[in-house]
Amino acid sequence: MRNEQRSGCPINLSLEVFGDRWSLIVLRDMMFGNRRHFREILSRSQEGIASNILSARLKHLLDLGMITKADDPSHKQKAIYSLTEKAIELVPVFATLGAWGRRHLPVSRELAIRARLLEEGGPELWAAFMEELRSLHLGAPRKPGARPVLAELRAAYERELAEVEAEAG
Amino acid sequence: MRNEQRSGCPINLSLEVFGDRWSLIVLRDMMFGNRRHFREILSRSQEGIASNILSARLKHLLDLGMITKADDPSHKQKAIYSLTEKAIELVPVFATLGAWGRRHLPVSRELAIRARLLEEGGPELWAAFMEELRSLHLGAPRKPGARPVLAELRAAYERELAEVEAEAG
Repeated sequence: MRNEQRSGCPINLSLEVFGDRWSLIVLRDMMFGNRRHFREILSRSQEGIASNILSARLKHLLDLGMITKADDPSHKQKAIYSLTEKAIELVPVFATLGAWGRRHLPVSRELAIRARLLEEGGPELWAAFMEELRSLHLGAPRKPGARPVLAELRAAYERELAEVEAEAG
Repeated sequence: MRNEQRSGCPINLSLEVFGDRWSLIVLRDMMFGNRRHFREILSRSQEGIASNILSARLKHLLDLGMITKADDPSHKQKAIYSLTEKAIELVPVFATLGAWGRRHLPVSRELAIRARLLEEGGPELWAAFMEELRSLHLGAPRKPGARPVLAELRAAYERELAEVEAEAG
């Protein structure tokens, strides 16, 4: 007999929101890869998300208030997706989840470097990254001298990838 | 067409391990409720997990190396389940997930208090809690004067519950 109840536990409710891993994968790609268009999320997916699954998950994330959709001013026919504040505040969850995965699972070296930097940077780096995401996704003003976390993470990934490829010959 | 690939991304791999919310719910109850026997996890579940689902998830968590199973020395017919180091190191993930859920989802007041304490305590409290879990689940020696985090969290929950009930008349 199925006897599932809802509860007001923060962890339980969080897990109900996430629903399945694809939703978090989409948020991850928007957050760390700054992918904002459907085609971009689809074609650059490391996990090869299928087009129908991506559509369904974007719809789900819109319904949950995790993302918004608007016409892209620079591409008349394209929609641009943005993270909401609710999604941006998942940065600490991704950071701790990535740190755990890096320690306990068979991660690839070039994909683990960002998790390492986020772990080492701690709450201060997470806050700086959330500030940057607010400017990229919500149009919040960027403070002068603010740390370009996204570029730093991307540069570290590319450096690591180049080393891995050089070592592989 | 389904075109799912694996990737070595720490976040992706972490999500593959979790699989579904029930596995994390079981870990949460073992971790924060110190529930160690099948009947205890089953009957005290806030979310009313079904017996067949609980069996399957315990099996899954054993296969993943997140828990171990042994004969309980104090109850000859009962098995006792313990968290492994791999599961104990999920404390920061639960802490950040709970903090996010508390902020963005309709959590109940008495169930939100532990999430608040874990958030406010930060990495220092998480480390103390992991030390305590290592002693409870792995038999690690407890340092003299170590902070009893589990008892503190439980006391806060009971205080909050009493207040909620008093206000409800």
